[in-house]
Amino acid sequence: MNRSREAIIEAVRSQMPAKRWDHTLGVMTTSVKLAEQYGGDPVRAELAAILHDVAKYWPIDRLERVVREQHMPAILLEHDKQLWHAPVGAFVAENDFGITDPEVLDAIRYHTSGREQMTLMDKIVCLADYMEPGRDFPGVNNIRELAKHSLEEALIAGFDSTIELLVSKKKRIYPLTILARNDLIQHLGG
Amino acid sequence: MNRSREAIIEAVRSQMPAKRWDHTLGVMTTSVKLAEQYGGDPVRAELAAILHDVAKYWPIDRLERVVREQHMPAILLEHDKQLWHAPVGAFVAENDFGITDPEVLDAIRYHTSGREQMTLMDKIVCLADYMEPGRDFPGVNNIRELAKHSLEEALIAGFDSTIELLVSKKKRIYPLTILARNDLIQHLGG
Repeated sequence: MNRSREAIIEAVRSQMPAKRWDHTLGVMTTSVKLAEQYGGDPVRAELAAILHDVAKYWPIDRLERVVREQHMPAILLEHDKQLWHAPVGAFVAENDFGITDPEVLDAIRYHTSGREQMTLMDKIVCLADYMEPGRDFPGVNNIRELAKHSLEEALIAGFDSTIELLVSKKKRIYPLTILARNDLIQHLGG
Repeated sequence: MNRSREAIIEAVRSQMPAKRWDHTLGVMTTSVKLAEQYGGDPVRAELAAILHDVAKYWPIDRLERVVREQHMPAILLEHDKQLWHAPVGAFVAENDFGITDPEVLDAIRYHTSGREQMTLMDKIVCLADYMEPGRDFPGVNNIRELAKHSLEEALIAGFDSTIELLVSKKKRIYPLTILARNDLIQHLGG
């Protein structure tokens, strides 16, 4: 990377409310732990975690402009704006922070939606985002329990919590999340 | 059609257990009622209902052979075998019963999965399959209540019951059902 860890942390921290930075700190420590537990690279997992929400507090029109100008999948614009900060975050990590590691960039890009054929790094950051210590939603403790023995089972439970929330709110479900969940279940033999 | 209504009924009835024929009778009467209520064609809706489960009791290997030989979407083979009888049923309706009405064939083809841009006939048969009087599962009475004022809201609730069941069983979800539900919600302005 072109900047030191500390410089990146400072630059990201300055772009978000203190509460969201606390969440990022939680995702960082959880990503490091999961990487150590499941044979991932803690340093690169932490870097992805530091940057995962870098675009979370951008104004909607700025997010939308990047999605359009960078020719990101058009289906994003038909779905919840909450999905946009992830691919835009990967763009920012590469363009503003000089990150070139494709696995780090992908882990940022897919941390909200998941995708088919998730890498170990994808799984670590996505799961850490669900279960970091500051998270409190129905089922989060079950996800933390599952994470003790299976990254995949915990991540499926995370996606299930998202799907159940969207069903209960009569909201649309991003198809890539279904593909991600199906793929994980298939790999577990289901 | 090439055969009389009575001849088709007799041919379909002979291919399934009595209990499943009772279900088909329920889908027939419910499809007729929904068609009358929502401005559909009761005669064609009933025809689709008569034939919707024609392949339901075929042996799995016979269903699979038709899916492969007729070049149906390969993704079907990766998903639950319960999905196969619907497109195979449309094939049987056309080839063995001489049905040529594309809306009747589509209503049979998509009665289990749904699809994007569902026709009125698709919605009627798919919803009737969820809510016919013999059905008894959590949420079915809510679906029947919703059907009194909105075909789409009732159908979304039907898909929700399927999604919730698959989530609770840690089973994969057929992506077309998510696309169908998303499309219905989008058309309702959600």
